Amino acid sequence: MRAQGVVFDAYGTLFDVFSVTRVCEQLFPGYGERLAQAWRAKQLQYSLLRAAMGRYENFWRLTPDGLTFASRSLKLNLTPAARDQLMNAYLTLAPFSDVQPGLTALRNLGLRLAILSNGEPKMLAAAVMSADLDHLLDETISVDEIGVYKPSAEVYALAPSRLGLDVKALLFVSSTSWDVCGAASAGFTTCWIRRAADDPPEELGFTASHVIGALTELPALLEQ
Amino acid sequence: MRAQGVVFDAYGTLFDVFSVTRVCEQLFPGYGERLAQAWRAKQLQYSLLRAAMGRYENFWRLTPDGLTFASRSLKLNLTPAARDQLMNAYLTLAPFSDVQPGLTALRNLGLRLAILSNGEPKMLAAAVMSADLDHLLDETISVDEIGVYKPSAEVYALAPSRLGLDVKALLFVSSTSWDVCGAASAGFTTCWIRRAADDPPEELGFTASHVIGALTELPALLEQ
Repeated sequence: MRAQGVVFDAYGTLFDVFSVTRVCEQLFPGYGERLAQAWRAKQLQYSLLRAAMGRYENFWRLTPDGLTFASRSLKLNLTPAARDQLMNAYLTLAPFSDVQPGLTALRNLGLRLAILSNGEPKMLAAAVMSADLDHLLDETISVDEIGVYKPSAEVYALAPSRLGLDVKALLFVSSTSWDVCGAASAGFTTCWIRRAADDPPEELGFTASHVIGALTELPALLEQ
Repeated sequence: MRAQGVVFDAYGTLFDVFSVTRVCEQLFPGYGERLAQAWRAKQLQYSLLRAAMGRYENFWRLTPDGLTFASRSLKLNLTPAARDQLMNAYLTLAPFSDVQPGLTALRNLGLRLAILSNGEPKMLAAAVMSADLDHLLDETISVDEIGVYKPSAEVYALAPSRLGLDVKALLFVSSTSWDVCGAASAGFTTCWIRRAADDPPEELGFTASHVIGALTELPALLEQ
């Protein structure tokens, strides 16, 4: 496709949340993977439930709520210090190894690049700085400015508006299949990056326009 | 409290979905519990994701979509015949053992009783008939008439409207903590029936007005 810009999901797509799992494992040996997974699932569920309830809270507020539930469901004693340590892990996530080379190559093609994330602005800014991505991105867009979460169509509409480009000139890239479906439903050409090769696509009535294994495949895709 | 009516969630609150788990286990030995849990989680997630996307599909349509994803994620080969057998299990669910005595006692107190469920009308009607609850219920209300899922406030508002009673005269009862939170957010007095005694409450900013272990505790609660 002949795109003029690429819009990326953040957590799990650009930022590797594995370091959160590692801190979970350090704090609760033998439970790291389960706690991290339960936490992530709750974080997402709370964003959707609160959206449906009309009770938006930003992601920095939801995230410890999800952690509280996840630790209780696993009968783990989460101290305030452990909670703070786990929350802080979200501020210093490593980027996946294909992120710097992939985004640099896209910049060299003259494309405008943005993040569009459920994350709260300060937590996103910290992660972007920590991963040294700020010089590669034109915009870091948080849902917080409209108080609605993905996969609402209103969220995806923020990207063309902020980049000053038509939605038809943009490619949306996410490792999360339902995020891809949400963007497709909102009119985007989409690319699913399968960070977990085993995950099947979600059954939500939309399929990704493209499927890749690494962000370094994007320049070739966009030059086709 | 001095209520004039009681509104119940259906699946997991009145109807025991264990029989679905049993069919899962018959079809996929060793995977029954995991498949049933993954299916149920996806069913809920798809209702919330589609609500956020503005792409409502009724619960009878969502349910096989969730099953398709859940079986693929567990690498199980779901044949059309197996899918039909699992879907049909939703039409003939057994009620929990406290349901008939609990609802009968509430009727004898002169209370109006209703179901308020995410379920599609025909699948709800089949389950109500199969469980022999039709003579105990004044209303079986499905979200399908407004095309929005729980925990949207619009859904909970259907109950006072259909029963012709003020929300303050109603008690909402569910085994699902987030459903209790949604009803509380919409102005109901709520009762959480802890079918799974180990489950912690959801961290959504609301707590149940009452917590019980069986529906047969409701008459005493309502006579206080």
